[in-house]
Amino acid sequence: MPDAKKPNPARRNERSRHAILDAARELIREVGYAKVSIEAIAARAGVGKQTIYRWWPSKGAVIFDSFLALSDNPEQEGMALPDTGDIEADLKLVMRATAAEFADPDFEAPIRALNSEIISNPDLAAQYRDRLARPVQDAKKARLRSAQQAGQLAPDADLDLLLDVLYAPLHQRWLHRSGPLTAEYADALVDITLKAFRP
Amino acid sequence: MPDAKKPNPARRNERSRHAILDAARELIREVGYAKVSIEAIAARAGVGKQTIYRWWPSKGAVIFDSFLALSDNPEQEGMALPDTGDIEADLKLVMRATAAEFADPDFEAPIRALNSEIISNPDLAAQYRDRLARPVQDAKKARLRSAQQAGQLAPDADLDLLLDVLYAPLHQRWLHRSGPLTAEYADALVDITLKAFRP
Repeated sequence: MPDAKKPNPARRNERSRHAILDAARELIREVGYAKVSIEAIAARAGVGKQTIYRWWPSKGAVIFDSFLALSDNPEQEGMALPDTGDIEADLKLVMRATAAEFADPDFEAPIRALNSEIISNPDLAAQYRDRLARPVQDAKKARLRSAQQAGQLAPDADLDLLLDVLYAPLHQRWLHRSGPLTAEYADALVDITLKAFRP
Repeated sequence: MPDAKKPNPARRNERSRHAILDAARELIREVGYAKVSIEAIAARAGVGKQTIYRWWPSKGAVIFDSFLALSDNPEQEGMALPDTGDIEADLKLVMRATAAEFADPDFEAPIRALNSEIISNPDLAAQYRDRLARPVQDAKKARLRSAQQAGQLAPDADLDLLLDVLYAPLHQRWLHRSGPLTAEYADALVDITLKAFRP
């Protein structure tokens, strides 16, 4: 029988979880990944360190979840790319939006922190691939298959290679700050990729 | 008048410098970037901490130089890509070698440490671009211009974009450990890039 006077543990857990993920993101933005500690996240969230360690094995894992919570969660929601029937227009829309996100300091800060951690942490890299990169990759490939069926891409095009060629240059330019993240660059990547993989 | 009994300060400096760069590389391999400290590098190299801070402003800067010392130094030596007259064969040779280097744990460890640092350190990213990436990029572009003159690439091909499309996918696959770094993948990148940028 539910007792209204006792706090609901599930709801309390959910509240703590959100507070921890919010604190992790705030601290990354304020002081950068290297200086964020589990202690600081716990203090900001108003929970004990043990609460964090009960749910997450490492700082990297909390940050990963704080990032997942920020974006549309591909584990939970169905995700799909626009499909107007025009693969060039649809990819340019998506790539321009991606470039704009990477150019936005508020949005990119936690992703940059995550990337920095992923590079030196193979376990986190595997989590990233399985929980974030792969669902997104699958959604993109579904759109590309529809373009193949419409005769806009070669029927034998290697879609994984196509996505590497399309996205990796933008990702690297962002990661190394080696050039501006513009709509022009996004469009150029779409144009050259479609040229390489057309029928 | 030189005094044989006094140690030569230039030679002593050079010896200390080498000891510091060797120590930095060894420690990265042994304990990983995050756990390497200026103190540990100084102790391993047999110098004082102040000696390191006299020459380098930060841990990232020492590691950057230790990496430059490992590879052919593009600042000092003329560097050029092979030019047999066959752009496909030459690029496959270079891309296979690059994939093999990234697949070699001894070689890739310091580059990975450097990349991890570059991501969160804009100053180091600028150093990386100016001192390492740009000279290498220039050497690659010289080879591509020779292919343009030979009619193997479109005369109006954007060579910076070409190099992004060719290298960024391999770099990202290595950085995220998202796939094997094989000769087949290197060849596929060359094939698709040449298809995209042919006359």
